[in-house]
Amino acid sequence: MRLDVVTIFPEYLEPLNVSLVGKARARGQLGVHVHDLRAWTYDRHNTVDDTPYGGGPGMVMKTEPWGDALDSALADGYETGSHAPALIVPTPSGRPFTQELAVELSERPWLIFTPARYEGIDRRVMDEYATRMPVYEVSIGDYVLAGGEAAVLVITEAVARLLPGVLGNAESHRDDSFAPGAMANLLEGPVYTKPPVWRGRDIPDVLLSGHHGKIARWRRDEALKRTTAHRPDLIERCDPKAFDKKDREMLSILGWAPDPEGEPHGRFWRRPEGVEE
Amino acid sequence: MRLDVVTIFPEYLEPLNVSLVGKARARGQLGVHVHDLRAWTYDRHNTVDDTPYGGGPGMVMKTEPWGDALDSALADGYETGSHAPALIVPTPSGRPFTQELAVELSERPWLIFTPARYEGIDRRVMDEYATRMPVYEVSIGDYVLAGGEAAVLVITEAVARLLPGVLGNAESHRDDSFAPGAMANLLEGPVYTKPPVWRGRDIPDVLLSGHHGKIARWRRDEALKRTTAHRPDLIERCDPKAFDKKDREMLSILGWAPDPEGEPHGRFWRRPEGVEE
Repeated sequence: MRLDVVTIFPEYLEPLNVSLVGKARARGQLGVHVHDLRAWTYDRHNTVDDTPYGGGPGMVMKTEPWGDALDSALADGYETGSHAPALIVPTPSGRPFTQELAVELSERPWLIFTPARYEGIDRRVMDEYATRMPVYEVSIGDYVLAGGEAAVLVITEAVARLLPGVLGNAESHRDDSFAPGAMANLLEGPVYTKPPVWRGRDIPDVLLSGHHGKIARWRRDEALKRTTAHRPDLIERCDPKAFDKKDREMLSILGWAPDPEGEPHGRFWRRPEGVEE
Repeated sequence: MRLDVVTIFPEYLEPLNVSLVGKARARGQLGVHVHDLRAWTYDRHNTVDDTPYGGGPGMVMKTEPWGDALDSALADGYETGSHAPALIVPTPSGRPFTQELAVELSERPWLIFTPARYEGIDRRVMDEYATRMPVYEVSIGDYVLAGGEAAVLVITEAVARLLPGVLGNAESHRDDSFAPGAMANLLEGPVYTKPPVWRGRDIPDVLLSGHHGKIARWRRDEALKRTTAHRPDLIERCDPKAFDKKDREMLSILGWAPDPEGEPHGRFWRRPEGVEE
């Protein structure tokens, strides 16, 4: 996979040399190319932004440097044999970046990121490249950053760890929160390792029992407790068919009830009073 | 504000020297202290993880290095006059990090981050420090990272830009997506700047009209279009009282209708057929 990033803060992307992404680069599984947007400015002040048409606060990033920088990155990639680029535009007004989208992006051969600053990039840049390649405008969450660079680190890491051979043995996809399968839509509960006692705190007996069935049940109950506490929105949308009898007992103990009125709207469970998202 | 980060990848936090956070540090508005977790290991291999109690894949981060590292960071902070620390634990099983939480954290004097790797940190660490300070277990989104470091960059940036005097004139909170006020729950529409024509693409006439009312209306309509397209979940939850007559006309053109059946469940609008989240 080839990654290009165009940014006014190339040094912000230093973490791409570290840890999992850094190792994937070293092994040749990832080619990463970081470009300084200001290299495609031609005035003395290396201007990348200007005031918005129609007035208002803030500055808008200009078309020309982005267009020239993207054309250059594209020419370089095509020359070295890359194909099928996609443009990834981090923006708070994008569609949500999810694990499902991470999987989709991990199957593409070439991703080009355009982390912006200020009020964002002149719309015509996205319109222009959308005629030539898929453009994904994505938001990593409902909060405001100073720029898109942190989002690029998040997206590249979520994508890179899904590439074949990138994750080592110490890590695993199997029980990931948000992974498909039995734990879909449930958050993972607590984990413990040696020593058995630390600062007077011990670990739940069941984990020392050696009884696989009981351990699995305990973990599932803890996942239900944690999810109801931290993400009631996920539980509400869980189809009751995804739960076995013991799951439903635990949900009932936690105060949750099936919601036949909500069901046609995709809301299968009713929260106990006082539980807020 | 004082920030401490304990991590096995200190170099991943280099972006804290860059841009907005870097400038806030240089001006003395932020004190940032990055600690290498492995400095609190005492074996030849600097071990920070071990197998999980109860079995299963992956590794769990051990109590002792975290406890010793946190105690050391706390002692150092208290010695230099910091007070009221809070622990921020990035984890996919946390509660969602939102702009509201960014505001809450920006009002605290001291944040200590514990980005983990592998399957996470032994639960007893969070239980122990929860007896002494608030512990925020937070998730920046519904996707899986290789570790919490990228989440620390996201959270620190979202928090730091809210500190008084950190944002320059080129940036602004006022029209932020997710900011409170008139644009609450709406995504920002497209923005444009000079030149008026780029690669044959011009800008919407209204933005050149000089008519402030029409420009405001156009921006509001574009925000409604974008939000219905990218975040139908946000529109569904918008109280109709937040919309004026023209907003409701635009929503109707986009195929959205009030949903009296959904309303008792906090779902005020019904999506057109085929619109998925």
